[in-house]
Amino acid sequence: MMLVSGPSSTKLGGKVAQILGVRNVSVEYKNFPDGESYLRLPEDVRGEDVVLIQTTYPQPDKRVLELLLLIDTLKDLGAKKVRAVVPYMAYARQDSRFREGEAISINTIFKLIEGAGADEFLTVDIHKEFSLKVLRIGAKNIRAAEAIADYLKSMELVEPYVLSPDRGALKIAQAIGERLGAEYGNFEKSRDRISGAITVKGEKVEAEGRDVVIADDLISTGGTIASASKIVKGEGARRVIAVCTHPLLVGEALVKMRQAGVDEVIGTDTIESEVSRITVAQLIARELSKS
Amino acid sequence: MMLVSGPSSTKLGGKVAQILGVRNVSVEYKNFPDGESYLRLPEDVRGEDVVLIQTTYPQPDKRVLELLLLIDTLKDLGAKKVRAVVPYMAYARQDSRFREGEAISINTIFKLIEGAGADEFLTVDIHKEFSLKVLRIGAKNIRAAEAIADYLKSMELVEPYVLSPDRGALKIAQAIGERLGAEYGNFEKSRDRISGAITVKGEKVEAEGRDVVIADDLISTGGTIASASKIVKGEGARRVIAVCTHPLLVGEALVKMRQAGVDEVIGTDTIESEVSRITVAQLIARELSKS
Repeated sequence: MMLVSGPSSTKLGGKVAQILGVRNVSVEYKNFPDGESYLRLPEDVRGEDVVLIQTTYPQPDKRVLELLLLIDTLKDLGAKKVRAVVPYMAYARQDSRFREGEAISINTIFKLIEGAGADEFLTVDIHKEFSLKVLRIGAKNIRAAEAIADYLKSMELVEPYVLSPDRGALKIAQAIGERLGAEYGNFEKSRDRISGAITVKGEKVEAEGRDVVIADDLISTGGTIASASKIVKGEGARRVIAVCTHPLLVGEALVKMRQAGVDEVIGTDTIESEVSRITVAQLIARELSKS
Repeated sequence: MMLVSGPSSTKLGGKVAQILGVRNVSVEYKNFPDGESYLRLPEDVRGEDVVLIQTTYPQPDKRVLELLLLIDTLKDLGAKKVRAVVPYMAYARQDSRFREGEAISINTIFKLIEGAGADEFLTVDIHKEFSLKVLRIGAKNIRAAEAIADYLKSMELVEPYVLSPDRGALKIAQAIGERLGAEYGNFEKSRDRISGAITVKGEKVEAEGRDVVIADDLISTGGTIASASKIVKGEGARRVIAVCTHPLLVGEALVKMRQAGVDEVIGTDTIESEVSRITVAQLIARELSKS
């Protein structure tokens, strides 16, 4: 096995390779003045079982296209097998035709990944697991709840209460809550499909004096978390800790959440950000060593 | 036949549809805060013979991915046939493995276009025509020299001399020169594969008192044109007119060329830019009406 780290996942790729004790090759990379990517494999990959790791944020379009270019190039250069590991899969929220005529973008991208020649696909906390069904190659979704819960354990939380901002993410709150031995539940979120405005509602949350963990698969603009934080702070929560697998943190997301009373924001390194204090390297390495 | 204009080619798409007298549908488009594209076909395409027009500059990665998403979405929505018209094809200069291990990016992208479901492919002045050979679907390269020469005719040039900056583009200078009834030739260009530095050389050019047209398939940073312009201005050229099919005009390209003595820069609308004074709409419409 040989690990190839794409331009967006050099750090995480290095960690996974170290845990597995395999060679790590970083893709040679530059950006041309016109915005095109230049990619080169600096080592021979002929006959190799290659694990390619490349996340797709920030710059989702560039990173997705690089992923496709790298899969095809590895095959063209003679790699025996290419397992594509995409720690954060962009476009996964575009998983259904909400209005007639819309692109179901994640379906197209999975077809392209398969068409480029990937033999297996691995990702972490994809928005909806059913999206993987379009893939005919082996596909696996790793859940980061275990690593997140272990990190939260080390924080010595006071009467922790784990909440997801909507029912869709309840399984995340549940997985974290169970491993943490904490109560868990969910808010109800509604999003206006046209304006994008988010509303979070919930029954009375017993937050008085407790540390509330708001857990979601990703944090984008931080609007959902901010909305939920205001509610629990209003009900007397001692601290609010926002945790997610994928810290996209668009624009002023951190400022917005802090202003809404969030005391800490914690994410994993599926995306390299300033809040990526939890690594998913062990989880990825464990999955890779299974097959 | 129905024309669908992608986000990057709304103007050109409108012109082509008008010439052909067919319905023009503009793709509904927005950019999500995290950088992902949202795409929607606002009209029914079931059973239609669709011509999709989408250029791939600026933002080549975003535009290429949108192209792929649109092809697959059109097919998924029931279009009978999708002809992909890509006026400027990004990544076409990455057409060979110049160093071991490099991505031959244009090959991958063509495979993806085909894999997404395109039934035919049409482009304008692709960097090297041999790149099209990787496509198994019908593929055609339209040459813009005719439209460029017709525009130059209207300029009443004095003893015009058409020069390409290197031997590779000589066929462009030749096609323009022949239609213009003017002398033509080429410089010799060399590019350092590592640093990217460009050198243009040529035998003595008889430019004294003449209008020199420097013609290339594309103008990126303008370095090549600037280098050639200095030579012909040094030999007494009356005016220097830089013409190209694809005006990428990266960064300060226009300033750089003007400082090197270029009097006018003219491009076509394969890319919408401030110098796109020539339209390729008629050429595209003519090709589309053949089949």
